[in-house]
Amino acid sequence: MAEKVTPRSKDYSQWYLDIVQHAGLAENSDVRGCMVIKPHGYAIWERMQRALDRLFKDTGHVNAYFPLFIPKSFLAKEEEMAEGFAKECAVVTHYRLKAEKGKGLIVDPEARLEEELVVRPTSETIIWNTYRNWIQSYRDLPLLINQWCNVVRWEMRTRLFLRTAEFLWQEGHTAHATQKEAEDEALMILMDCYRKFAEEWMAMPVLTGPKTEGQKFPGAVYTLCIEAMMQDKKALQAGTSHFLGQNFAKAFDVTFQDQEGKREHAWATSWGVSTRLVGGLIMTHSDDHGLVLPPRLAPIHVVIVPIFRKPEEKQATCAAAQQLADGLRGLPVDPWYGYEPIQVKIDDRDQHQPGFKFNEWELKGVPIRVELGPKDLEKNACVLARRDLPGKEAKLFGVPLAEAPAKIAVMLKEMQTALFDRARKFRDDNTHEIDSYDNFKKKIDEPGGFFLAHWDGTRETEDRVSAETKATIRCIPFNRAKEAGQCMVTGRPSAGRVVFAKAY
Amino acid sequence: MAEKVTPRSKDYSQWYLDIVQHAGLAENSDVRGCMVIKPHGYAIWERMQRALDRLFKDTGHVNAYFPLFIPKSFLAKEEEMAEGFAKECAVVTHYRLKAEKGKGLIVDPEARLEEELVVRPTSETIIWNTYRNWIQSYRDLPLLINQWCNVVRWEMRTRLFLRTAEFLWQEGHTAHATQKEAEDEALMILMDCYRKFAEEWMAMPVLTGPKTEGQKFPGAVYTLCIEAMMQDKKALQAGTSHFLGQNFAKAFDVTFQDQEGKREHAWATSWGVSTRLVGGLIMTHSDDHGLVLPPRLAPIHVVIVPIFRKPEEKQATCAAAQQLADGLRGLPVDPWYGYEPIQVKIDDRDQHQPGFKFNEWELKGVPIRVELGPKDLEKNACVLARRDLPGKEAKLFGVPLAEAPAKIAVMLKEMQTALFDRARKFRDDNTHEIDSYDNFKKKIDEPGGFFLAHWDGTRETEDRVSAETKATIRCIPFNRAKEAGQCMVTGRPSAGRVVFAKAY
Repeated sequence: MAEKVTPRSKDYSQWYLDIVQHAGLAENSDVRGCMVIKPHGYAIWERMQRALDRLFKDTGHVNAYFPLFIPKSFLAKEEEMAEGFAKECAVVTHYRLKAEKGKGLIVDPEARLEEELVVRPTSETIIWNTYRNWIQSYRDLPLLINQWCNVVRWEMRTRLFLRTAEFLWQEGHTAHATQKEAEDEALMILMDCYRKFAEEWMAMPVLTGPKTEGQKFPGAVYTLCIEAMMQDKKALQAGTSHFLGQNFAKAFDVTFQDQEGKREHAWATSWGVSTRLVGGLIMTHSDDHGLVLPPRLAPIHVVIVPIFRKPEEKQATCAAAQQLADGLRGLPVDPWYGYEPIQVKIDDRDQHQPGFKFNEWELKGVPIRVELGPKDLEKNACVLARRDLPGKEAKLFGVPLAEAPAKIAVMLKEMQTALFDRARKFRDDNTHEIDSYDNFKKKIDEPGGFFLAHWDGTRETEDRVSAETKATIRCIPFNRAKEAGQCMVTGRPSAGRVVFAKAY
Repeated sequence: MAEKVTPRSKDYSQWYLDIVQHAGLAENSDVRGCMVIKPHGYAIWERMQRALDRLFKDTGHVNAYFPLFIPKSFLAKEEEMAEGFAKECAVVTHYRLKAEKGKGLIVDPEARLEEELVVRPTSETIIWNTYRNWIQSYRDLPLLINQWCNVVRWEMRTRLFLRTAEFLWQEGHTAHATQKEAEDEALMILMDCYRKFAEEWMAMPVLTGPKTEGQKFPGAVYTLCIEAMMQDKKALQAGTSHFLGQNFAKAFDVTFQDQEGKREHAWATSWGVSTRLVGGLIMTHSDDHGLVLPPRLAPIHVVIVPIFRKPEEKQATCAAAQQLADGLRGLPVDPWYGYEPIQVKIDDRDQHQPGFKFNEWELKGVPIRVELGPKDLEKNACVLARRDLPGKEAKLFGVPLAEAPAKIAVMLKEMQTALFDRARKFRDDNTHEIDSYDNFKKKIDEPGGFFLAHWDGTRETEDRVSAETKATIRCIPFNRAKEAGQCMVTGRPSAGRVVFAKAY
């Protein structure tokens, strides 16, 4: 725990890995590209799941579970999907090992599968193959189903949380009787679930809007996205919601009888967010001292550090700490935290000094630290420190113990708001309109950021920018100004500005 | 939904499948041996997860996530485990498909893995390989970690929930500094988590005790189990907790420095329950009308069916239904239900008659039904029906609407207790002491049940009984009488009776 975090200014990539390691969030496993999500990292993911799951259920969705394995032929049925995912699939070819003398365990050649199975990279195909039996009439629609599971995409260059061969996610798959209903669903998920979760829980401001043709999901008619800016000014695609049209209904022959008795193909959406969000959370708020967590997603909200030297001091400060913890846990359950009591930890370890403990809990991102020493106790008071504020500004001295629980509850909400405001200001300060491609090429690396530029709407131009600068179009923002103009690259007409940036 | 459930007396196996199908719990997928868990079935599993997860956390455990894939060589490192699981492993050999003209997608022969990966059948090996880096000193112990995930065991004969190639489960993996601590942990999990959950949440009484050598987990020193009786009098192994000794620490070289500075191998436990529990829940309580759910695990606790013919009747009864639902949802949150409000559904569909609706909700196992017609409304009253009671006994007429929420809350708890008592009586009534092997062979199929018999403690005798009768020793109950005797098969000395039964 004494290890130092590399400052962001020195090496942003190493800073990120240091946070992930020293805060105990995740590590690489001995299986290529697969990570181990450690307890503190998993606790954050659990809180994310809990909040998202409630948003999905409150908007009428139910959970289900579909098989891990997808027959190779299913993947082949939707052409764009086959092309998009075939190159990165883990393939199961056998169902048995056997012991062979001198060789240990070998794959039993007699246990070869008739048809190879792919470990799901995404589940549209297996789910729509199932929906064929579930959907007969318009009365069976809409079907609003979500699944929490693991998926595998054989990535060659991986990075903890942000890009791993196996990751955890949720994937929603809905079926509708009309195009409009499906399009409304894709938009509702984006705005009322993903945007809301990103901004109100993660305190991470996001742009919303469609992706370009070049950036859309294989098999989608169009893809909507939430897009965030990290502290190195690069973009992170944080969630996507796809309108799939009738592509999968046609590939898997899913039809229903409508109110007039005609048979129609069902309309589809799919949408997902993943453990990548943990990476986004880290890169939005954390600092050179360690993790900074928005209170609504913090596994521990408050750590109380009793300060003592002599045994009688330990007894007194620990008793006061316990009383304060009880007071906090006894606050009315507030849905704001996800329908659970405030989580409090007392750090009464003997073998470490207070300074060591303060550093450790800062590294782990606990929002509020309470310091409680013999002198505080004499005054029936304590010291409160907020994780996101710098130096002395973070500390509040002489807070009466009786008032501390209510005060802490207020500070947690203030901190949540402050984190969001700071992140939004950072994004806005680093978002620039730009009209000259030469200028763009100069600025995309330094200072970097989001660049609002006119674009002629062609794949060709997008590919050229990407090849020449490594920047891509992140999204066509819903809320962009109605402003016609000329493409910064070709000078051809443009209907409005799009967002260019380098991305994770 | 009008489909009839096959009566248990006619065909118990078909009855089970009918319940699973008609209540919308699960179905077979097009992938051999893998099931689709449908929304109602998954909602039950979610409630199980929630309750178990709290029991684990309240006893000091944290969640984490380890890779889906296990290198073949890891599995080979622990001999018993390799032998136990090698024969039923899904093996990943390639990481890419490619399109080939005229053949569609084929496995790309150039993308062969250097070392094959097995889809985890259980995670001891990958987890202990990770623990090697996490455990250096006695201060790092105990390590109390649980994982919620999917696992794959290539079963040849599958049965929805009870035995499937892929299933969902939790697996706990703990490391300790001493043998005693590890043994205490294995026992604590069995008694304070698994037994408690089975009896207090599932209302399913269980026997507790060790398995015999012949029935233990591959790699364990010994296995403790909870064992339940289904309505066909067969046994279901519902959960196991293993003391693994130092087997995995030695196989993966996990040592720590103890307080005296000596290096020691760590002591291990592992323990798991799975979606099999959903099968056990069905077979413990359900009847010929459909699913019966213990209230603490019911996704919907109360369904309110307004009864109407004319529009003005619909308006009045639906308004009263809404008010009652609000009253129920407004009851103080009771941890008894898992820290969530009572779940209420109003079935105001126009296209179905009340009788159809009653049948449907009976099939789905909703514990309490409220009937609310114009005549009830005149008296400001409603009819309550409890799912587990037969015919007229189930109904309570003329319950004043104002009193209904409190009354329902009481009925839910009464029903939970009644289900447990009934299941325990059934098990006790069908548990017999037996001393003659001839008698045993006559009775094991008809009437069937649990047979408490003396056994000489040898694998040989156990195997002989199994070969001759298909019954196995389910467990050596902790609470058995201290009664020496003679083995019913060989006449050799026995230290006490063990439980023989046929099992799922």
